[in-house]
This record gives sequence, C-alpha cells and structure tokens, in this order.
Amino acid sequence: MNRDQLQKLYELKYRGENISLCRGLMECFADSLLKLLFPAMCDQSANSFEEFEQNINHLDNDLREILSCLNKQLTCQLDLDEISKKFFGNLNQFEREMTLDAEYILNEDPAARSLNEVIICYPGFYATSIYRLAHFFFKEGLPLFPRILTEYAHRRTGIDIHPGAEIGCPFYIDHGTGVVIGETAKIGKRVKLYQGVTLGASTVAKTLVDKKRHPTIEDDVVIYSNATILGGKTIVGAGSVIGGNVWLVESVASNSKIFYKSTGES
Amino acid sequence: MNRDQLQKLYELKYRGENISLCRGLMECFADSLLKLLFPAMCDQSANSFEEFEQNINHLDNDLREILSCLNKQLTCQLDLDEISKKFFGNLNQFEREMTLDAEYILNEDPAARSLNEVIICYPGFYATSIYRLAHFFFKEGLPLFPRILTEYAHRRTGIDIHPGAEIGCPFYIDHGTGVVIGETAKIGKRVKLYQGVTLGASTVAKTLVDKKRHPTIEDDVVIYSNATILGGKTIVGAGSVIGGNVWLVESVASNSKIFYKSTGES
Amino acid sequence: MNRDQLQKLYELKYRGENISLCRGLMECFADSLLKLLFPAMCDQSANSFEEFEQNINHLDNDLREILSCLNKQLTCQLDLDEISKKFFGNLNQFEREMTLDAEYILNEDPAARSLNEVIICYPGFYATSIYRLAHFFFKEGLPLFPRILTEYAHRRTGIDIHPGAEIGCPFYIDHGTGVVIGETAKIGKRVKLYQGVTLGASTVAKTLVDKKRHPTIEDDVVIYSNATILGGKTIVGAGSVIGGNVWLVESVASNSKIFYKSTGES
Repeated sequence: MNRDQLQKLYELKYRGENISLCRGLMECFADSLLKLLFPAMCDQSANSFEEFEQNINHLDNDLREILSCLNKQLTCQLDLDEISKKFFGNLNQFEREMTLDAEYILNEDPAARSLNEVIICYPGFYATSIYRLAHFFFKEGLPLFPRILTEYAHRRTGIDIHPGAEIGCPFYIDHGTGVVIGETAKIGKRVKLYQGVTLGASTVAKTLVDKKRHPTIEDDVVIYSNATILGGKTIVGAGSVIGGNVWLVESVASNSKIFYKSTGES
Repeated sequence: MNRDQLQKLYELKYRGENISLCRGLMECFADSLLKLLFPAMCDQSANSFEEFEQNINHLDNDLREILSCLNKQLTCQLDLDEISKKFFGNLNQFEREMTLDAEYILNEDPAARSLNEVIICYPGFYATSIYRLAHFFFKEGLPLFPRILTEYAHRRTGIDIHPGAEIGCPFYIDHGTGVVIGETAKIGKRVKLYQGVTLGASTVAKTLVDKKRHPTIEDDVVIYSNATILGGKTIVGAGSVIGGNVWLVESVASNSKIFYKSTGES
Repeated sequence: MNRDQLQKLYELKYRGENISLCRGLMECFADSLLKLLFPAMCDQSANSFEEFEQNINHLDNDLREILSCLNKQLTCQLDLDEISKKFFGNLNQFEREMTLDAEYILNEDPAARSLNEVIICYPGFYATSIYRLAHFFFKEGLPLFPRILTEYAHRRTGIDIHPGAEIGCPFYIDHGTGVVIGETAKIGKRVKLYQGVTLGASTVAKTLVDKKRHPTIEDDVVIYSNATILGGKTIVGAGSVIGGNVWLVESVASNSKIFYKSTGES
C-alpha cells in the first residue's frame, strides 16, 4: 500500500470528532460492579470492608473516566458528580433487584440447584443484571454507554435486550440464546421467557423512532421458546401462557393460553 | 453512597458461606485440557514429551485447586486424589471420543475441508468436547463445576448442553447457535443436529426435578434447523429424519421422515 | 495416569503434520485491523500519522507470520509479498464498503442514534466486516484462515457467515443471533436480515461439495426474523419482503410479499 493511500485513509478516519470511546473500560466497569455485588462471580473477592470500600472507589473513578470520555462527544456536558452519586446511591437497590431475579430463577427452574449456580452460570441472570445497570444510564439520558453494555451482554449470552426496554422485577430468562427485547417493550413482574423469544416490531422504518414499536407483557406471563410477539399495540394480558413457536401480532386477554398448532407431517 | 449503606451491603454479601468459586480457573482448565489433546487449537504447543508431561502436571494441580475450592462449599468432602486419578486415567478415552466426533463432522459436512478445520473452527465440536469433560464431573456428583463448564461453552458457541444429558459418540452439531439440550435428554450414536434445535421439556415446573423431562433420540437420527422436540416420554426412533422447523411433542417410530408443512402465503 | 498412556497420547497427537496454526494471532489480526479502520472501536487509537503507519507495519508483519504459519501446512507455498501487498492495497476499499454498511444500518434502524453507535455496538456490523476480510482471503484460496475469522465473529455475535458466501454492499443484519449464511449463498445489494434467518441447504450430503447448495437473494430484499430459505436453486427476486418465521424452499418473483400464516390457537 503506498503512502498516499495511507495518508488519505488517515485523514479520513482520524480527523474531526473525538474518537476514543473507552468501550473496553465500560465493559470492564460493568463486570467489576457485578462481581462486587455478587462475590461468587469473582475468583478474588475483597477480604475486608476496607478492601471492599477501596474497590468501590476504583469503580467510582472508572465511572468518572467513562463519563469524561462521553463528554468529549457531547455539547451539553454530563455532571460527573451528580451521576456518580446517584448511581452509587442506587447500589443497594440494584443488589436487591438482581437477588430477587436470581431467587426467582432458583425457585422456578427444576435444573437449578443453588443460588450460586444461578448467579455464576445462568446467562439470563447475567444479561438481566447488565440490562438493569444499562437501563439506569439510559434513563439518565447518557448516549452510547447503555447500548455498549447491553451489546456486551448480548455478545456473551446471545440475549439482546435494548437498554430502553422497561422490565419489572423479578424477571427470568432461561437458556436465552436468540432472545430479542426491543427498545419500547414493557414487561411486568414475574415474567418468564425462554430461548429464541422475540418481542419485536411488526414493521421497521426509520420514521417510527420515538413511537412504541414493541409489545407490552403484563405480570405473570410465561413465553416459551422461539415464540414471536410483535407490535407496539400488542398487549399480552396478565397470567397468560404463550406456547413455544407461537406467532402473535395482536393482543390477548388476561390468562390466555395460546399454543402452536403443529404442521409437521410424514 | 454513604458509608452506612456500604457497610450494610458488605455485611449482606461478604459474610456467611465461602464465596470464591474460581470460575476463571475452571474455564481455563477446560480450554487448556482441550489444547493439550488437540495441539492444533493452541498457538504454542509442547515441543517434547517432557514439556507435554509438565503441562499434564500443571493441569493436575489446577484440577486439585478446583476441587479444593468446591470442598469449601461442601459438607461431604471430595477425594482429590481419587477424582484426579480417575479423570486423567480417562484422558485417552476423551481423546478417542472427541476425535470420533471430529472425524464424523468431516465426513458428513460438505463445507468441511480438513480435520484441523473441524477441530479449530467448529463450535459444535468445541461445545461437545466441553460437554464430554463436564459430563464426567457430573457423573462424579460434583456440584457447580460441570454446569460452569457447559455454560462457558454456551457463552462461546450459543450451544447450551446441560452436563447431565447423555450423548452417544460420534455426535455432530452444525452451526449450533440456539441449540438447547436439556438435563435428562438421551441421545444415541451418529446423531446430527443443526442450529436452533431444542430438545426440551414440554412443561416446566420445579416439582419435576429428578423426573425425565427431555426427549430420547435414538441412533442415526438427523434433526434439521430450528426443530423443537419436547417431553420426557417423547422418543424419536432410530434412523428418523426430523425436518427444519418441525414441532414434535410425541414419539415417532424408527425411520420416520417428518417434514414441516409450510404456512407461508403471499 | 501412567507414563505409558501419556507416551501413547503424546505420540498420537504431537507427531506427523505441523500443528501450530496461530489461531490467536489470526483473531487478533482481524480485530486490530478493524480498530485501525474504525478508531472509535479502540480504547487507544493512533495520535499521529507516524503512529498510524507504524500500526499498519505491525499488521503487515502479523499477516506475514500468519501466512508463514499456513505455509507449513501446504505443499504449494503462498507468496507472502504478493498476498500482503494485495491485501493492504485493498484497505481503502474495505473501509469504503464497511462504512457504507454502517451508514445503511444507521439510515434504516429506528433504534440507531449515531454512526459510532452502529460501529461500536452492532454485532451485524462487526460480523459483516469480519466476513469482508475473510472473503478476501477465501478468494485468494487460503485454507483455514478465512473460516477461523468468520467462526471468531460467530463466537462473538451468534452470526455464522461462511467466508465463501458472496454478499453485496451495503448489507444489514439486525440483532443477528442465530443467522446462518451458507457457503454458496449469493446476496445482492441493500439486503436486510434479522435474527435467526437461515440461508441454508435443503439437503446436506458430503457429495454436494462444490455444488451451489444455498439460495440467491437479489437486491433490496428484506428477510424478517427466523425465516428459513433453503436450496441452491431458490432465488428470492429483487425487492421482495419475506416475513418472520416464513419457510421458503422455492423461488419467488421480484417484489413478492410472503407472510407467515399464524397457526396459534387458544
């Protein structure tokens, strides 16, 4: 490759907007925070309160670095002190919700033997926990950071939850690979999803930005594997059971049981 | 966040049971073992028998550390010497089964060009190999470790095999993303699965623990992409072909051909 | 494990063909190259043209090491200078195609807020970019390396694109988990795919190697989530829309709209 071409490429890609987005630091921050809240996830956890407090301080520094990094992209600057204070002030709340999620999984899944197994092994627990952190930053109006976190969880679990979705607690995703939960989906309490479930848009067009494009799932609904539920006006009523493979593009009343009718033949 | 809240969080999460579970070491152990058995997976493999033997000794130490780590959680202690001896005594058997798996994939997949391509590239080979290690530890009655291994493979491949499943040899999963094989599934020899296949439970309830909840797949069955087969009493007879997208909740006789009847329309 | 068994295992696995395939270096090369072309992906990007040029030189060395590594497996040797020159001479072309892909996603997806969000977060952008690099090496006839790259992307995204597939530009995959694009698929320009779409073979048999086994998708086609399109003679005509869950094993004319007919029932 000749030097002129290189120069052209350099001018094209390395000028203009600020470019470093510290994605690596963001991903590391989220994992370190979960390990702090759930020491079983961690090979080396704090041995004293002082060490624990020190770990919190490190995380506080990391968060401020992340926010500074975002500020370089923004005209309206983020208030580092305010966001950091609010985030760490919410730590016990995060811990409570995540623990409720884990306990719910343990109580419902016959394959789960212990709370630690759920916390360490279950991709659904991990993806939901990362989502809960990302959703906090989404509500604070931060750009990029929330989506980087949920796409990190997507990469590690195959579970794709948009940080804008609203998800009650407790929440349970089992197996999880292929689950997609869209930006404007609303999900109640004690909802259970299995692998391959899509809560998506019935049509996709750029003009629909800021419209509710994804369904509402009320409390105590179970949605089995590979079911697809589409549309911003679609509401799945409380207590309903949606069977595996079901394709649903309109609302169903509370306590509905919808099952897929097999179409196999020899 | 004030110090009182932190103290409360610390007391809540860092007291009581022993907490470090050395998940990182467990994942590293499994990968190192596969690299030792299949040096093509490895950027730097042993150059002499002495080095190879040294690598085995390192792995033996790692396994003992993992078992000690589990013992801290257990009232009935694991016998480190016995388990380690049995595991390493089984090394040639692991190697033979994994090699049979790889050769079977090479012989069946038109896209596979060489045994090394299968060993290095195929997620189905990787997930099955990790499962074979995990299943050994599952049969030994070890807690957590088997599931940590298969969830590690799940994270890297999108293939979710419970370590309790019984899978014959050779076994072949192609593409693999979204495959789920439940805890009590039984799979014969020369079975082939494609992406998105679920061998699952027809209903999920905590009371069903220790019941056979997942299907039996006899020898020489092929199950194409995104087929779903559910239920502990469901048996797919030897030599059957289950087409893509098929939904199956009851047994089919040997040599059945079940195909999905399209329901698309313009 | 006794020493005789170990010796037997060593003889079996560490003799014969050259074994190190530097998979780690290959994966690292691809990521470093993308980070060089899209500095937003990178936590620490070049601060001057000299540094940028130095990074290119490092990558050139890495590529030569990878090719040398492959040469150890080959009877007919690769020409390091020629391939390296051709690859780096194509850098601006890679950058242009990948940027077109990213801009297309930004323009079409209501959930996408900025080009950087697409570049950093979207697994579809990542998998397509890695595919574009891998396809270059596939066309050069290199063994193993192309497939190692696309399986690396598969591991990180759940999107499985065979390096032999021919894909026009721009191309868009959203969410992506579970997508499979077979070796002989041909895809036109401005095609959009959603999660779980399979472009596969209708039958799989080793004898079909070198035959066109996977479908052709013409320009401006949209294929929604979990649709399955099979067969080497299947052509989806330009401008068609294939709905979610559709199962298609024969050609459809240009501008067809195919939708799945729901089979759910209460």
